[in-house]
Amino acid sequence: MKEFFKVTTIEAVLALRNVFGRSGTERVGIEQALGRVLAADLLAPGDIPGFDRATVDGYAVRAASTYGASEGAPAYLAVVGAVEMGRTPIQAVGPGQAARIATGGMLPQGTDSVAMVEHTGVIDDATIEVYRSLAPGQHVVARDEDAAKGQTLLSAGIRLRPQELGLLAACGATDVNVFVRPRVGIISTGDEVVPVGAVPLPGQVRDVNTHTLAALVGQCGGQAVLYGIVPDRYEALLAVCRQALAQNDMVLVSGGSSVGTRDLTVEVLAALEQSRILVHGVSISPGKPTILAQCGAKPFWGLPGHVTSAMVVFMVLVRPFLAHLAGWINDAPVRVPARLTRNVASAQGRVDFVRVRLTRQTGEIWAEPILGASGLIRTMVASDGLIAIDLNSEGLEQGAPVDVVLF
Amino acid sequence: MKEFFKVTTIEAVLALRNVFGRSGTERVGIEQALGRVLAADLLAPGDIPGFDRATVDGYAVRAASTYGASEGAPAYLAVVGAVEMGRTPIQAVGPGQAARIATGGMLPQGTDSVAMVEHTGVIDDATIEVYRSLAPGQHVVARDEDAAKGQTLLSAGIRLRPQELGLLAACGATDVNVFVRPRVGIISTGDEVVPVGAVPLPGQVRDVNTHTLAALVGQCGGQAVLYGIVPDRYEALLAVCRQALAQNDMVLVSGGSSVGTRDLTVEVLAALEQSRILVHGVSISPGKPTILAQCGAKPFWGLPGHVTSAMVVFMVLVRPFLAHLAGWINDAPVRVPARLTRNVASAQGRVDFVRVRLTRQTGEIWAEPILGASGLIRTMVASDGLIAIDLNSEGLEQGAPVDVVLF
Repeated sequence: MKEFFKVTTIEAVLALRNVFGRSGTERVGIEQALGRVLAADLLAPGDIPGFDRATVDGYAVRAASTYGASEGAPAYLAVVGAVEMGRTPIQAVGPGQAARIATGGMLPQGTDSVAMVEHTGVIDDATIEVYRSLAPGQHVVARDEDAAKGQTLLSAGIRLRPQELGLLAACGATDVNVFVRPRVGIISTGDEVVPVGAVPLPGQVRDVNTHTLAALVGQCGGQAVLYGIVPDRYEALLAVCRQALAQNDMVLVSGGSSVGTRDLTVEVLAALEQSRILVHGVSISPGKPTILAQCGAKPFWGLPGHVTSAMVVFMVLVRPFLAHLAGWINDAPVRVPARLTRNVASAQGRVDFVRVRLTRQTGEIWAEPILGASGLIRTMVASDGLIAIDLNSEGLEQGAPVDVVLF
Repeated sequence: MKEFFKVTTIEAVLALRNVFGRSGTERVGIEQALGRVLAADLLAPGDIPGFDRATVDGYAVRAASTYGASEGAPAYLAVVGAVEMGRTPIQAVGPGQAARIATGGMLPQGTDSVAMVEHTGVIDDATIEVYRSLAPGQHVVARDEDAAKGQTLLSAGIRLRPQELGLLAACGATDVNVFVRPRVGIISTGDEVVPVGAVPLPGQVRDVNTHTLAALVGQCGGQAVLYGIVPDRYEALLAVCRQALAQNDMVLVSGGSSVGTRDLTVEVLAALEQSRILVHGVSISPGKPTILAQCGAKPFWGLPGHVTSAMVVFMVLVRPFLAHLAGWINDAPVRVPARLTRNVASAQGRVDFVRVRLTRQTGEIWAEPILGASGLIRTMVASDGLIAIDLNSEGLEQGAPVDVVLF
């Protein structure tokens, strides 16, 4: 009855991403584009801001007119007008002259810098004195300083943050070409699993995995499609898996931590059209009994039934595949360096993932391992992230530096 | 013309959060609850899992039946049946007996532990040998190990992650009581600002702030309501501000980095009903000319026009207010400790926020300052986060430890 997995390493599993293609693309309005993945490089359609622009309130001048100016020996300049916001200044400004300008205004012809109002004094309606010497370009954003026409500003494959949306707006992009969010079918199995709305009888548990996995999919930019709970019967599971494969870009079956249910998942996978098991067992803990198959052009995962194991496998393995489908290149999760609060043992020959809580003490960040059986969802609730203990390590000592991947 | 701000410190601004109340609450389905803020404590409605549960495949036994067992001297046990998944085992198991059980199964009466299948051998249909001594509770999750009835599992004010949704599911919560997402009205001002879809004439720029701020609001759990661009005229701005105040829980006016526009915002604020200016100038850079007013029960912000300044002010000041309105308690952003790649100068008497890019070299994380005028959106695009240089500091040296708040 003992199972011999030919376990695959994490790296070997991740290398299989290239078996699969990427999502198609679509255009969405920039109001809807936060968190979406850019599908084409963004080139600057013109110079931005497109004109030399004041960064302070004051007087647009020719810098040379102020050379040598100081509090003791100010430069005296003739005020020849004021720049109106949003308009081309009609008047050129010559040597020894100045034009009033507000922050964001366009520098008049003949000027190259702005004297801050704080460094000037008003003599009369037509004359100011300037107390500091200016350099050309001072207090000015050059016409192409934010972007020069044709420059690549954003690369395809990045996930859009607020500032990227700002840059798109600056380029006049009211909508943007992004990858379609991959659809991910989620199936729970297990004769002991009942819907969240049901009252479990003794021996039954509520379906936690569907909701946890759906939220993880959403967080990573996918669209979860729920298929509910399927009993541990070949025909029932095969029918739902076939339907989920037809309707989605990837399928996750969770449940079946027992050998019997795992065998059932493998049997169903073998019966699916154009299917091929790529991975059956991964050298990680928790999550060893993970299955990855290729069904046509789509990845199909058999995840452990324990919710914490399923979450770890999602973060370590499924997430990078989802990112790949989604066209997302810069998908490395945030890692916070910390030190371990206590010794943690680990078995050689597998990568151990340990849930940790972060605490800050005496200016340092500490990672405190959260213990508990891998079926316990509260251990995930108590945690801020995961640390990995290497394949060849027998454990880490108190004080050891670790990288915490945040949830 | 010189302005004298009575600048307020960051801490004093943040203390003003308590002037304002919190959002109302609503019930949403757990499928829609990712990222929402819990409005009531979650108490365990019963023990979870609710029964003693096997964590491995094997045989449910009384631990005492295996005491002293080893490879050389196994314990022989009589197999009296098998536990069906999701059912109460009908048969009690006595001393010297065992029942087959799969991971997740319910322990039969009379048993307290599970012998892993890998540590057993089958003698015949009715007899097994066990090679290891078990302790009571071994390979079992106790009936109340994930949660004991009545225990507080989640506190009001947390933002729901996938694992919290899993815990809610385990408790049978098909829907959940959350704070209503605060509505945030966003207004751009400036005669030089044109809509994103327009082609700017010389002297004009596209409206970047509306889209950047809306995305920041959405990221922090608010609902952005856009009011577009309002010209720098008293009546126009007053009318739109009044409308936005009536329709939202908070209002952001951005633009007006020039003294004239700032004055206009202040004038409009003074004219609004039940309004009181709480802050006019903050000791930060960028972002000094920030305005905060209380209009009735609602916060009203005047943000700088430069998009980078507006983003910094949002992250440092507006975000904590939005979190407060949203009922969000654990709202501290992620901080990554790093070391500076180069010296950074800073003025005393204000907190300087410097954009940085994170790089990893020789196992350490480095923060590389991104330079550029604060009007440049590309400096935000190039950055991963912000560091703060303290009020009393004249700067930080290369190699200095810093905390990077991630965007």
